[in-house]
Amino acid sequence: MMITLYDDPISGNGYKVRLVLAQLDIPYNLVEVDILKGETRTPEFLSKNLNGRIPTVEFEDGRCLSESNAILYYFAQGTDIWPADRFDQADALRWMNFEQYSHEPYIAVARFWHHLPEPPDPKALAEKQKGGYAALDVMEKHLAANDFFAAGRYTIADIALYAYTHVAAEGGFDLSRYTAVNGWLGRIRSQPGHVPMAPHPPLPHGKPE
Amino acid sequence: MMITLYDDPISGNGYKVRLVLAQLDIPYNLVEVDILKGETRTPEFLSKNLNGRIPTVEFEDGRCLSESNAILYYFAQGTDIWPADRFDQADALRWMNFEQYSHEPYIAVARFWHHLPEPPDPKALAEKQKGGYAALDVMEKHLAANDFFAAGRYTIADIALYAYTHVAAEGGFDLSRYTAVNGWLGRIRSQPGHVPMAPHPPLPHGKPE
Repeated sequence: MMITLYDDPISGNGYKVRLVLAQLDIPYNLVEVDILKGETRTPEFLSKNLNGRIPTVEFEDGRCLSESNAILYYFAQGTDIWPADRFDQADALRWMNFEQYSHEPYIAVARFWHHLPEPPDPKALAEKQKGGYAALDVMEKHLAANDFFAAGRYTIADIALYAYTHVAAEGGFDLSRYTAVNGWLGRIRSQPGHVPMAPHPPLPHGKPE
Repeated sequence: MMITLYDDPISGNGYKVRLVLAQLDIPYNLVEVDILKGETRTPEFLSKNLNGRIPTVEFEDGRCLSESNAILYYFAQGTDIWPADRFDQADALRWMNFEQYSHEPYIAVARFWHHLPEPPDPKALAEKQKGGYAALDVMEKHLAANDFFAAGRYTIADIALYAYTHVAAEGGFDLSRYTAVNGWLGRIRSQPGHVPMAPHPPLPHGKPE
């Protein structure tokens, strides 16, 4: 018996979970669910996650857990990638909440739009660019003075923020001036057991400017 | 010496923290920060939270913590409102992530727009209505079979979701058909030490339809 991960290879939220499971050496069955084909909205899938989203993990006893950052928390307990100190734990969650509220809705959504058959609406895209760069500015300021996001070492806060930051170019973001962010991306890639994100189909409208 | 909470009384995210501090009987200094006047974007405030948002807590030693759900996590450790079991903990965080990603950006933002001097753009508001009702539908389905969100009892997941759900009418949401949600709102209000949200100024355009 093994856990099952319901995931779409295009998803950076799913990649967070694939990365943490690889680094913690936890085996799992992978069931691919195609978001664009509506496979997260079937009655069967909704019985696993009422909110109809991947990644969702199903445990051996049939219980399910969704929301990428909650899944990271679950698997990281008792390992080096979850801080021991209460303030550091909350600080890791602070950056994970920043990722879900101030980063993902801009950077991940802009990237997703570039993967859709229709080109994105320029005005809506401009808003995503503005919010995404604001999030990258916050990261740059933090990383100018810190090697990692919380507890002075590699934690699930870094995994959460790495997922969509390292593919931000696919959403049209230019990371070249983000010196500290680029240094941090390199530190994350060099962590033991790191695995890359799955290759994805080419962007339908070519590479964003 | 006491902790300091930087907060704007209009904020439901701030109310989450005020509610948890009241229920846990933790004294604090309150410093009101006016979002609409840009007081979260001053250099002094940004030194406490690079992301320029309230609520932010400053501890006696000068360290700061932001993101409402991370603050709830910090104060709930070792109390009855944080589950002891690892799955239940992750499940509470699952609902808190749902709140920040699938609930707050619709219900809280629609409410905020109704508090601005300019009436909200009808098309943008319609999108917020759609997302907000989708979140309420998920809550209704969960609460039809469960008294609380996680661990079978009152936790910080309930506090996180209560904050903006109980004032959803101020964003134009009609909760009358959400029987299970209304039952849950009553259970939350009846918890020991519950405090109401601060009264807010009247809506500039009258009550939303």
